[in-house]
Amino acid sequence: MTRAPATPGMRLDEVDTPALVIELDAFERNLQRLVEAIAGRVRLRAHAKTHKCSEIARRQVAAGAVGVCCQKVSEAEAMVAGGIGDVLVSNEIVGAAKIARLAELARQAQIGVCVDDARNVSELEAACAKAGARLDVYVEVDVGARRCGVAPGEPALALAREVVSRRHLRFAGLQAYHGAAQHLRSMTERREAIGRAATAVRATRALIEAAGIACSRVTGAGSGSFMFEIESGAFDEIQPGSYVFMDADYARNEWAAPLPRFEHALFVLATVMSRPVPERAVVDAGLKASSVDSGLPLVWQRAGLECVRVSDEHGVIEIAPGAAAPALGEKLLLVPGHCDPTVNLYDCYVGVRGGRVEALWPIDARGALY
Amino acid sequence: MTRAPATPGMRLDEVDTPALVIELDAFERNLQRLVEAIAGRVRLRAHAKTHKCSEIARRQVAAGAVGVCCQKVSEAEAMVAGGIGDVLVSNEIVGAAKIARLAELARQAQIGVCVDDARNVSELEAACAKAGARLDVYVEVDVGARRCGVAPGEPALALAREVVSRRHLRFAGLQAYHGAAQHLRSMTERREAIGRAATAVRATRALIEAAGIACSRVTGAGSGSFMFEIESGAFDEIQPGSYVFMDADYARNEWAAPLPRFEHALFVLATVMSRPVPERAVVDAGLKASSVDSGLPLVWQRAGLECVRVSDEHGVIEIAPGAAAPALGEKLLLVPGHCDPTVNLYDCYVGVRGGRVEALWPIDARGALY
Repeated sequence: MTRAPATPGMRLDEVDTPALVIELDAFERNLQRLVEAIAGRVRLRAHAKTHKCSEIARRQVAAGAVGVCCQKVSEAEAMVAGGIGDVLVSNEIVGAAKIARLAELARQAQIGVCVDDARNVSELEAACAKAGARLDVYVEVDVGARRCGVAPGEPALALAREVVSRRHLRFAGLQAYHGAAQHLRSMTERREAIGRAATAVRATRALIEAAGIACSRVTGAGSGSFMFEIESGAFDEIQPGSYVFMDADYARNEWAAPLPRFEHALFVLATVMSRPVPERAVVDAGLKASSVDSGLPLVWQRAGLECVRVSDEHGVIEIAPGAAAPALGEKLLLVPGHCDPTVNLYDCYVGVRGGRVEALWPIDARGALY
Repeated sequence: MTRAPATPGMRLDEVDTPALVIELDAFERNLQRLVEAIAGRVRLRAHAKTHKCSEIARRQVAAGAVGVCCQKVSEAEAMVAGGIGDVLVSNEIVGAAKIARLAELARQAQIGVCVDDARNVSELEAACAKAGARLDVYVEVDVGARRCGVAPGEPALALAREVVSRRHLRFAGLQAYHGAAQHLRSMTERREAIGRAATAVRATRALIEAAGIACSRVTGAGSGSFMFEIESGAFDEIQPGSYVFMDADYARNEWAAPLPRFEHALFVLATVMSRPVPERAVVDAGLKASSVDSGLPLVWQRAGLECVRVSDEHGVIEIAPGAAAPALGEKLLLVPGHCDPTVNLYDCYVGVRGGRVEALWPIDARGALY
C-alpha cells in the first residue's frame, strides 16, 4: 500500500498525482439512476470487479442491491470481510487451493459460483463436504461471449443434473452474461444480441424444468445491455458494474431509452510535468495510471486537448491551435478508457464533492488475483 | 498487499495463479550478458522502472551497476529504502510536495533528476536550499522521443546555465533517452535513430563546454539500443531496464551483434479454468494479470496454443488442430507483451530455479505513482 495522495478537506488541486478521483455527486446519481431504471423488475447484484472496493459495495447494497458479483475468490474474500453477506463469484473456480478457500468462505456468507465442467462440480462438492459448507452453483451458459460456459440446451441440463445430485451444492440457476454484447455500438445491435441470448436462456430453463429440476434464477447482463435483459423477461437478476463510473469506451456506445444515461464519475487527476513545445503538454499519468486496453484516456472538459499517446509514466497531450493551453504544474482530469483495469492500478479512491476531498476509500480488492 | 501465491520449496505447478514468475537462471544470465556486452566501456545505471524491486536492484549493483534509474520520486524512495545509494530520477519532477520529498531524499543518498524548464530549476533550488540538500541535475534533451526534454543545442545550453547558477544544484550533464527508437524493428533503423541522437548530443555537449560549463556525463539508452549508444562514443552511461526480463514486444525486434541475446525470464503462470469446446481453453489470467498495451501475451513453449483475446480476468487460448490440448486445471506459462506495466500488477515475484520456488521478492515499488 503506497501513501495516500490526499487528506480529507483538501482542495482537488492540492491532491497529489496521479490520483484516482470519484466525483461523489455523479457517482451517487449513477447509483440512483440504475435503481430507478430497473424499478424493482429484477434483482440487482452489482459487479464489484469494476470498483474492487467494499465501501462502494456497501453503498450499492444500501441502494437496493441484493449483494455483489466478483470474478475471483480473493475479491469475494475482500467483500465478505467488508461486510457483504451475499456474493456470487460469476466465474469458474479451478484448483484445489482456491476451491478450499471458496468452501471456507461459504461458511461465513451466502456464496455462489459458476460451473461449466462436471469434474469441477465434483471438486466443489468434495471441498464443501470437507468444510461443512453449502454453496450455490450456477451453470454458466455461453450465450454469445465465446469464453467460458457450456452450450445452451442439453449440455446445460446435463450439468444441472450433476449439481443437483450433490449434497453440499444447491443448483441455483443459470449464469448467462453476454460480455461481447456490451460494447456493440448501436442500441439495435445490442438489443438483437441480447434477444438471441434470451431465447437460448428461455429454452434452456424450460428444458431443465421439464426434467423436474427447479431453475430458480437466471442472472447476467452488464451496464451496456441490462435493460434489454429486463425487457426480454428471461432474466431474474442483473449484474452491471461499470454504471457506477462509466468510462470512455462505454461512452462511445449509443445510449438511449430504455437505458438511462450514466455520468463519468471516475477520473485520473494528472499534473502537467512538461511543456516542451507550444503544441504539446506531457502529464505524469501514463500506462501505470490508466489502462489503455480499450483506448486512450480523454481529457475532461478541456476543448482542444487530446491525449495522443502514452508510455509507462507519461501521457502526451496535443494542444490544438487556439485551444487554452495548460501551464506547467496545472492539473487535468482524464476519463479512463476502461475503468476496471484502471482501478486495479490504485490503492485508494479520492472521493471529491464540490471541489473538496470528502473521503479516501481503500481499494481493498486491488490486486486480488487469486 | 495480497497474500503470496507460493512458499519456498514448492514445485512450480503448485504455485497459485496468476503468479509472476522469474526463471532465476535466465534472469542471472541476462544480468551477466549485459555486463559482458558493455565490457566496462560505459557506466551502467539499470532502469528500475522495469522491475520495481529493490531485491533486483541490489543484484544489478552487485553485478556492476553504479545505481539505478527511476521515473517517480516514490520509486526512488523505495530504492533508497532498499539500500540503493545512487538513484537518478530520469524524469521531470513537478509539484511542491514531490519536489520537497525529492530534496529530502537527496539528504539520504546520491540523487539526480532531469529538467526541461527554467521555473522547475528554481523550484528544485528552493526546495534543496530549504532541506539543506544537494541534487544532481541533468538537462533532458529531446533526441527523437517527442515527449519531454528541451531541443538540442542552444535551449539545452540556456537551461544548463540556469542550473549552474544555483547553489544547491550540481549540473551533472545531459539526459538523452530515445524511447521511440527502442522498438524500431530492424537493427538498421535503430542504429540510424541512435546515430542521429548521438550527433545532436555531441553538438550540445560541445556547445555547453565551449561556454565554459563542464558537462561531465551523457546518460540514456534502453535495452533495444544500448550498444549503438556505446558505439557512438557520445554516451558515458546507459540505462537499460527490460534486459533483465525481456518481453514479447522486445522479442519482435531484430536482435544481432553487437546487441547480446537476452532470454525471456519473466512469465505469468496461469491455470486453465475452462475447456468449453475442443478448440478453446480459457486461462485465469487476463488484463489484470498481463498488460496488453504492447500486444497479447504469448503461450510459452506450447506449439499450437495462441492467446487470441483477453478480458479483465480471462485469457482465451485457441488450440490449433493437432496441437496438444491443455487439460482443465493445467498450468501454462505466458510471456507478457510488455514487462514494466505487467510487473506493476503484482505484489511479489515468485523466483523459480529448476522447477522449484527459491524465493519470493516483494515488488516494493509496485503502484509507486507519486
